[in-house]
Amino acid sequence: MDLKVVVDTLWVLITAMLVFFMNLGFACVEAGFQQGKNCVNILSKNFVVFAVSTLAFWFIGWGLMFGDGNPWVGLQGLFMLHGADNSPATGDAYQGVYGSIAWTGVPLLAKFFFQLVFAGTAATIVSGSVGGRIKYFSFILFSFLLVGLVYPVVGHWIWGGGWLAKLGFWDFAGSTVVHSVGGWAALAGVIVLGPRFGKFGPNGQINVIPGHNLSLALIGTFVLWLGWFGFNPGSTMAADPRLIAHICVTTNMAAAAGVISSTFMSWALLKKPDLGMTLNGCLAGLVAVTAPCAFVSVGSSAIIGLIAGIIVVLAVIFFDKVHIDDPVGATAVHLANGVFGTICVGLFAQDWVSPNTTGNGLFFGGGTKLLFAQLTGVGAVAVFTFFGSLLIWILLKATVGIRVTLQEELEGLDIGEHGNQAYPEFVTKKLSVSYAGIGTESSANFAEGKVAKEALR
Amino acid sequence: MDLKVVVDTLWVLITAMLVFFMNLGFACVEAGFQQGKNCVNILSKNFVVFAVSTLAFWFIGWGLMFGDGNPWVGLQGLFMLHGADNSPATGDAYQGVYGSIAWTGVPLLAKFFFQLVFAGTAATIVSGSVGGRIKYFSFILFSFLLVGLVYPVVGHWIWGGGWLAKLGFWDFAGSTVVHSVGGWAALAGVIVLGPRFGKFGPNGQINVIPGHNLSLALIGTFVLWLGWFGFNPGSTMAADPRLIAHICVTTNMAAAAGVISSTFMSWALLKKPDLGMTLNGCLAGLVAVTAPCAFVSVGSSAIIGLIAGIIVVLAVIFFDKVHIDDPVGATAVHLANGVFGTICVGLFAQDWVSPNTTGNGLFFGGGTKLLFAQLTGVGAVAVFTFFGSLLIWILLKATVGIRVTLQEELEGLDIGEHGNQAYPEFVTKKLSVSYAGIGTESSANFAEGKVAKEALR
Amino acid sequence: MDLKVVVDTLWVLITAMLVFFMNLGFACVEAGFQQGKNCVNILSKNFVVFAVSTLAFWFIGWGLMFGDGNPWVGLQGLFMLHGADNSPATGDAYQGVYGSIAWTGVPLLAKFFFQLVFAGTAATIVSGSVGGRIKYFSFILFSFLLVGLVYPVVGHWIWGGGWLAKLGFWDFAGSTVVHSVGGWAALAGVIVLGPRFGKFGPNGQINVIPGHNLSLALIGTFVLWLGWFGFNPGSTMAADPRLIAHICVTTNMAAAAGVISSTFMSWALLKKPDLGMTLNGCLAGLVAVTAPCAFVSVGSSAIIGLIAGIIVVLAVIFFDKVHIDDPVGATAVHLANGVFGTICVGLFAQDWVSPNTTGNGLFFGGGTKLLFAQLTGVGAVAVFTFFGSLLIWILLKATVGIRVTLQEELEGLDIGEHGNQAYPEFVTKKLSVSYAGIGTESSANFAEGKVAKEALR
Repeated sequence: MDLKVVVDTLWVLITAMLVFFMNLGFACVEAGFQQGKNCVNILSKNFVVFAVSTLAFWFIGWGLMFGDGNPWVGLQGLFMLHGADNSPATGDAYQGVYGSIAWTGVPLLAKFFFQLVFAGTAATIVSGSVGGRIKYFSFILFSFLLVGLVYPVVGHWIWGGGWLAKLGFWDFAGSTVVHSVGGWAALAGVIVLGPRFGKFGPNGQINVIPGHNLSLALIGTFVLWLGWFGFNPGSTMAADPRLIAHICVTTNMAAAAGVISSTFMSWALLKKPDLGMTLNGCLAGLVAVTAPCAFVSVGSSAIIGLIAGIIVVLAVIFFDKVHIDDPVGATAVHLANGVFGTICVGLFAQDWVSPNTTGNGLFFGGGTKLLFAQLTGVGAVAVFTFFGSLLIWILLKATVGIRVTLQEELEGLDIGEHGNQAYPEFVTKKLSVSYAGIGTESSANFAEGKVAKEALR
Repeated sequence: MDLKVVVDTLWVLITAMLVFFMNLGFACVEAGFQQGKNCVNILSKNFVVFAVSTLAFWFIGWGLMFGDGNPWVGLQGLFMLHGADNSPATGDAYQGVYGSIAWTGVPLLAKFFFQLVFAGTAATIVSGSVGGRIKYFSFILFSFLLVGLVYPVVGHWIWGGGWLAKLGFWDFAGSTVVHSVGGWAALAGVIVLGPRFGKFGPNGQINVIPGHNLSLALIGTFVLWLGWFGFNPGSTMAADPRLIAHICVTTNMAAAAGVISSTFMSWALLKKPDLGMTLNGCLAGLVAVTAPCAFVSVGSSAIIGLIAGIIVVLAVIFFDKVHIDDPVGATAVHLANGVFGTICVGLFAQDWVSPNTTGNGLFFGGGTKLLFAQLTGVGAVAVFTFFGSLLIWILLKATVGIRVTLQEELEGLDIGEHGNQAYPEFVTKKLSVSYAGIGTESSANFAEGKVAKEALR
Repeated sequence: MDLKVVVDTLWVLITAMLVFFMNLGFACVEAGFQQGKNCVNILSKNFVVFAVSTLAFWFIGWGLMFGDGNPWVGLQGLFMLHGADNSPATGDAYQGVYGSIAWTGVPLLAKFFFQLVFAGTAATIVSGSVGGRIKYFSFILFSFLLVGLVYPVVGHWIWGGGWLAKLGFWDFAGSTVVHSVGGWAALAGVIVLGPRFGKFGPNGQINVIPGHNLSLALIGTFVLWLGWFGFNPGSTMAADPRLIAHICVTTNMAAAAGVISSTFMSWALLKKPDLGMTLNGCLAGLVAVTAPCAFVSVGSSAIIGLIAGIIVVLAVIFFDKVHIDDPVGATAVHLANGVFGTICVGLFAQDWVSPNTTGNGLFFGGGTKLLFAQLTGVGAVAVFTFFGSLLIWILLKATVGIRVTLQEELEGLDIGEHGNQAYPEFVTKKLSVSYAGIGTESSANFAEGKVAKEALR
């Protein structure tokens, strides 16, 4: 047995396990940032989604993404990993239908397992944004279609040897493939669903609906930070010592910088350092560095993280302002910073970090060629994913329906969808609801009369 | 230094760490599914049990299990790893008293550490089932005896070169050795202890006592799912790339399938997709695939998981019907599916997956020889473990006593056993208690009069 | 590529990830053991501290610690890892400015990442002790200075080739470098800050302020236990199979023994087995074995853990008696047992465990030379860290201030410092406060009149 194959397989599998664990992170962040009356529903969505993703990616997604085909989509090895494959053979020695991923010398099922946990991540990003009003069954269907059809097509373009790969577009670990795909799908869903009742007041006021359990949110964020050490360094899919150490450090540096900048940004804008912003700042830094982590210096990763932490605070405020109701800020984290991080490759890349890949970006004398490729990819994925997801959401709305009744929404989806309560023994209270007076002196109070009584239990 | 030994040791230790982490998973699942008034007690049991297991397995268990001896029990190297051993030498080069585990080329303490975390798992399965009424000290004693005496004898039969191993019985990662041993020991305990007060009504009604914190239960289940990537793939105890990748995928596939089938099964039977059933469905799939994970195809693992998810729902209902009060469904998960998974080896095994081990099972032309060996093992372990545990429970009951007073049970074991409260600042409520009208129209209400007032605080 | 380098890098990075994860452990333990009204603040401190540590260690700490210099401090490669380095070359082949860590053959950034997560641990130890009354901004400043200046100087003495290393002082994984440094810094902070309002009664009574969420504390402790399998075995910074397996077992054995002894010690002293004591007993065993884990036998590690579990119970009581208000017992865990564990090297070390390092300790015929070196190190680090930290705390107090107003303290730091609530939907109650009548029959009640009304919400 070639020991290089053994070591690479260990690395791929162990990092895949860390990425799998991110499912727990997303579940805790999303549940913690939302209301207790919807907690079981959110947890259920985040739990079932990886099971659904597993089946969808096995049935069809893997083949569409990595199967040999045309620049648009994989056409061979479509169902349940059928098709020839002599992995761990690589390069010219490889014989099989998954040529686009034959650069890594690990067994086929190691490749599949690693890519599966990535596919699951895209779907789980959606679940937070649509929380508090989506039908459980519709979410399951959407997740199946996203992981089975939408995600793998984008993945084929970029990681499956498709047209964006050929164009010179680089996305090392998935700022675009995973995070903005998840983000665009979420945005489409939020638009079709509409905001939660009571989120926006009759005069356009923005209503803060605080998360029910910040301990849970913090657990989730630390688990995600850990998981990212699988996500980014593992995307080497080979244990190259210098490169994986480099990626560990750039990943961590961007996260740390995002924590600091989002904390002080929220301190400045909101007068106090909001924990939710701090946590989202960490995730923003991680999302942003995901594409460039293997192409940029440690110093650049710090700058990218700093900017990401600022972007996420502004994006949360922006999405609120335009009445996009994303209860957990997933679009601010994954969409805004997925796009930003992908563009950063075109700006901050340095050839010495991963020779013979990106070359230098704009800031290091590489000109605008790489930057244009990155922008092209961002735009193409935006159009395909947003409208593809929009179509699915609209079809689901027209058939099985996607939104629970107002009655159920007010009572909480835990009872309505699951017949469970997350914390049946604890006495909870009706929350009064106030508008976030961000950037203004006044802070109107929405919690009056009939609306407030009904809006939140 | 032989790099193969280095890499194998890394794999064994890292997967052992993941299995260790399952202690957190069990703690969270068991606490989350039970009442808040017993939460500290449950957490304490799940925490102390691994410490107790460590001492018991070091003092005596390891030697009984892997020491050279007769087909029934190990007789050499009994205490605290004394005895000759030249690991990592293997095969004919091995010289020492632990010949049955000399097939893996890692240092002795790596073998010990990996087997220790397995032994701890068996004991922690018991803790959930006996929750809400067992004396803390009796549980500690039982755990010591289970890990020191009962578990290693079964382990010797199957993994220590004993009579079941010679018979051609196969249990790759412990559906029987770990999970049904834990399950039978739990069942014996539940029978000797009797049900919690109020669980079954005066007319035989079945009372639902909801878990106090489903966020905690979900955290636990994800941690267990992660831990299983140590449990099953790690049981290779050698970093064989193709096989460990295969086991990662079969393990994950069975879990995913169990999630889906239990969710839809509970949706059909209970009208709504119960989160508890979904979580237990995941664990059921994992338990069931534990024995066959290295012997069956990916497709077979999906089928095994699907069936496991159905079995667990039916088993929970069945144990309720026969008035076996297992607050967390550990017998439904670990016992029913431990047995099922062990039998699956006899049905689904295919020779190509792990050549020169099981050969083909019944469904793949291998005839019934393997199946009979599996059934023999299931039966023998059932008899030995159930009656051995029963004897211990009865002896403990006759000496130190095993059940707290009714007064203490009603007030909660946290105050009675530990003088702690899990959440002293939160206001909690008396729960009204209703019977689960599973399969019937009527749903009687038990929460009336004196009984209800006392039954639950 | 030399596969030995690959494997060593894998080991270093994966164990570093586990150590990183200890940040979650500390966050949960510290939040769980404190009041809900301060929960967001505690979580925020524990989250931001690793980001701050990352920047501080990158900017300056790493160079001070490992840069070539004099016996007192590193003077080269000070800022942001500038300076020559041809890692993974080792020994005579090494050329660069970080000669003191050139014994391990992994890339520079792998060394940096591993040492960074260690540095972060020292700072996070402080956060628990100063909880409930410290200003958020002051804590951030202190953490930056601790990780940037104090910790690396001590680290240079011991791990950076400084005077204590030359003296023959041994601290394998940091009982002194990390844990007592954190502990002394915390003690200085607690003294300058003073106790929380209401902790000590008007007549010197000791007031028990129970933790708000023991589920959280248990999660944290298990995560820390897991993380220690990175902390101790990873400190080999090379995948030596026999040694890393040995360290896994000694680490686990000390933890298990600490659990048992602290449980029964608290059972004896407090009449009931207090969960907080059990959890701290685990951590005590882990801290104590951190220095000697690679130098002592498995049996010795069990004895060390047993004693550590007793020490921590007595230390918690002692610190209460002398009115040192450490809400989470971090000084009892990290300071008392950091010192104890460091001394244990001088007592229990055996030459065969790691040949050509410590030689034998006092109990194994090695005389008192090693013991004196250990005591010298303990004393020198105590003086430098305690007084250095004291100076920083006093300077911060004189400039930005370190303590929140009494009004804010009574209302809780979550609102005052962050404008958040951890659990806004849950109804909480004013706790009555009673003194721990440890060792006495009487248990005075403090919760009367005006003081109690104000003391705790």
